[in-house]
Amino acid sequence: MGRLFRSRMDVDTAKNIFFKAIRPIERKESVPLEAANGRVLASDIEAEQNVPHYKRAAMDGYALKANDTLGAAAPSPVLLTLTNGDVGPGTCHRVHTGSAIPKGADAVVMLEDTRASGTTVEILSQLHPGKHVGAIGEDVAAGELLLSSGHLLRPGDMAVLASTGISDVEIYHRPLVAIIPTGEEVVPMGKPLEAGQVWETNSLMTACYVRQAGGFPRINDIVTDDPELIRQAIQDNSDADMIVISGGTSVGERDHVPAAVEALGELLVHGVAISPGKPTALGVVEGKPILCMPGYPVAGLVALLVFGIPALQKLGHIPPRPETVVSLPLKEKITSRQGYQTYVRVRITDGSVEPVMASGAGILSSVAKADGYVVVPPNIEGYGVGTEVDVIWF
Amino acid sequence: MGRLFRSRMDVDTAKNIFFKAIRPIERKESVPLEAANGRVLASDIEAEQNVPHYKRAAMDGYALKANDTLGAAAPSPVLLTLTNGDVGPGTCHRVHTGSAIPKGADAVVMLEDTRASGTTVEILSQLHPGKHVGAIGEDVAAGELLLSSGHLLRPGDMAVLASTGISDVEIYHRPLVAIIPTGEEVVPMGKPLEAGQVWETNSLMTACYVRQAGGFPRINDIVTDDPELIRQAIQDNSDADMIVISGGTSVGERDHVPAAVEALGELLVHGVAISPGKPTALGVVEGKPILCMPGYPVAGLVALLVFGIPALQKLGHIPPRPETVVSLPLKEKITSRQGYQTYVRVRITDGSVEPVMASGAGILSSVAKADGYVVVPPNIEGYGVGTEVDVIWF
Repeated sequence: MGRLFRSRMDVDTAKNIFFKAIRPIERKESVPLEAANGRVLASDIEAEQNVPHYKRAAMDGYALKANDTLGAAAPSPVLLTLTNGDVGPGTCHRVHTGSAIPKGADAVVMLEDTRASGTTVEILSQLHPGKHVGAIGEDVAAGELLLSSGHLLRPGDMAVLASTGISDVEIYHRPLVAIIPTGEEVVPMGKPLEAGQVWETNSLMTACYVRQAGGFPRINDIVTDDPELIRQAIQDNSDADMIVISGGTSVGERDHVPAAVEALGELLVHGVAISPGKPTALGVVEGKPILCMPGYPVAGLVALLVFGIPALQKLGHIPPRPETVVSLPLKEKITSRQGYQTYVRVRITDGSVEPVMASGAGILSSVAKADGYVVVPPNIEGYGVGTEVDVIWF
Repeated sequence: MGRLFRSRMDVDTAKNIFFKAIRPIERKESVPLEAANGRVLASDIEAEQNVPHYKRAAMDGYALKANDTLGAAAPSPVLLTLTNGDVGPGTCHRVHTGSAIPKGADAVVMLEDTRASGTTVEILSQLHPGKHVGAIGEDVAAGELLLSSGHLLRPGDMAVLASTGISDVEIYHRPLVAIIPTGEEVVPMGKPLEAGQVWETNSLMTACYVRQAGGFPRINDIVTDDPELIRQAIQDNSDADMIVISGGTSVGERDHVPAAVEALGELLVHGVAISPGKPTALGVVEGKPILCMPGYPVAGLVALLVFGIPALQKLGHIPPRPETVVSLPLKEKITSRQGYQTYVRVRITDGSVEPVMASGAGILSSVAKADGYVVVPPNIEGYGVGTEVDVIWF
């Protein structure tokens, strides 16, 4: 009784094997720019026109011929006549920042370097041609590569694209992630509980993370611990880009998920040297990555963050953002499980870090109390009081 | 001609004055848990019931009476008889992780510490009462404060709340942010441009940031540089929680926005020692914060990040997330404007940081090329090659 884990693979090896098996999706869609923030470009974007498309004043002041300002200075101003039309010798034209430079002018004098009375303007400084004049295309040149395929669109990018007249962009689909909760002991939220039963919450947590990371989650009904039904649920989701199965990943007699993956495709990894999260299994069915996350919620969360979200990012061409890290000293020691990469939930109080009830992968409430987590590598036993640790923000 | 800035206030003083004038909103709504990820709790949440609500097995194995295992060891196993009912002396009951502990049992022996044949189970280790038994409420005790008002809900929190039977939560409204683009020179996207005209893009950029930060943006039509129309637009948005006006914030003859704010309410700040972004103005009208952001897009972006988003967070009770910072050495020097807190767009290539075309607040395309920005304090002139700088991720 009780199969053993076929391996307890170190986390980097497991990641490499799993991510190598993932082929990014190719489905694209075209959407209005307004709907594209946070999405990933599926084609290079070249500027359709120059920005600005005209010579523009870079300052509030007067457009003029630089030649006319020879020798101008505060004690010896040059006098020019205000015009509302083209600029000829001896004339100047009031401009504002961003205004088109009128015909005939080749420089702009700042308002601060002038004195005006009626239609006469005293110019108090000498200018060279081109002074305070923005060239056509100085911001963006027509034909210039603005953004490349694979770029994650941010609000500033939206403005850049809009400024060059781009109204629609081609983006990758959000990967469709099927979430399959399993287990005899879990029941849908809202249903009254009997002894031995808990509400199924991993699918809600997973769906929130998937959506947040740029995927599209689809939660399936709970599947009981039956090998045939689990295989069926996997096959029923063959339209998904990725499958996350929760529960049934260990080596007990009710743990049928890894075998189901093996029967339908390839079980790449079963048992990873992470704590919590050891029973995690990883596989591929019909080219689709499958994350089998432990049913114990904290273990499931770790599996999701370590394997699930990066897999989703690779599928969806989503460039990973750097982690948000806060480095602070430990107020209490952290103990870890040697030989395992350990994820310790911590909270930050008064500028120092303290572990939140490190005990037990079943203690979900520790997550609500934590600001983030500290990763302890497998080859050390923990960190002592006062050690500065990197807290990765949830 | 040409008013001067009444001040060029340092950024921290400006922030203090502005944020002190902001009163967080009080409007709340109740939503299903599924819709609450990323939102802010508007009331404390206490657990409605114990989790688990029964004594549970913490391991796969056999539930038994600890008393029965006295002296048990691999060479001298204790023999127990398997039962499917209550556990009496000399019997044990197969359990799985998370199963209810059957009546009569007070400990669980791990599967690994047993040998079974037929209905006889050999117990290979001695247990104390309570071993591998999870107490009622060990995760969450009924009545316990789970999360406090003002907490930003994350995916793990959703699972914690769901596990205690909570199906709806009270959250704060998203603050409504009215965005008013102004300027004679800006025209709506899609409309053909004449010389001197550019498409209006600040409102799209602002709307994306507002939505991303947890607010609800409402973009108004472009208002031309007319004092009466600008005042009217501000009054037309009196239902908003905050107003962001783009353009017309400087001291030129077409810059009517600060005066309009002053006429309707209080102009708190006009002119800030940030670069780009000096013409930023901040005020309050009818208790509503107003950010007057410079029309030049990069200056507007800086004003938005420095003042607008933090103001929105205060309005909406949204706890600010730590910045995502990457610390790397400079490949090229950064020059800054002395006396101004300078925001330099940078990109990261081959593990080092280089500035992206630091010239000009009008060069919007620099934003698309940047990964983030480096903040240079006002009292220094820049950073030399090789200096390790903190890049704040866009």
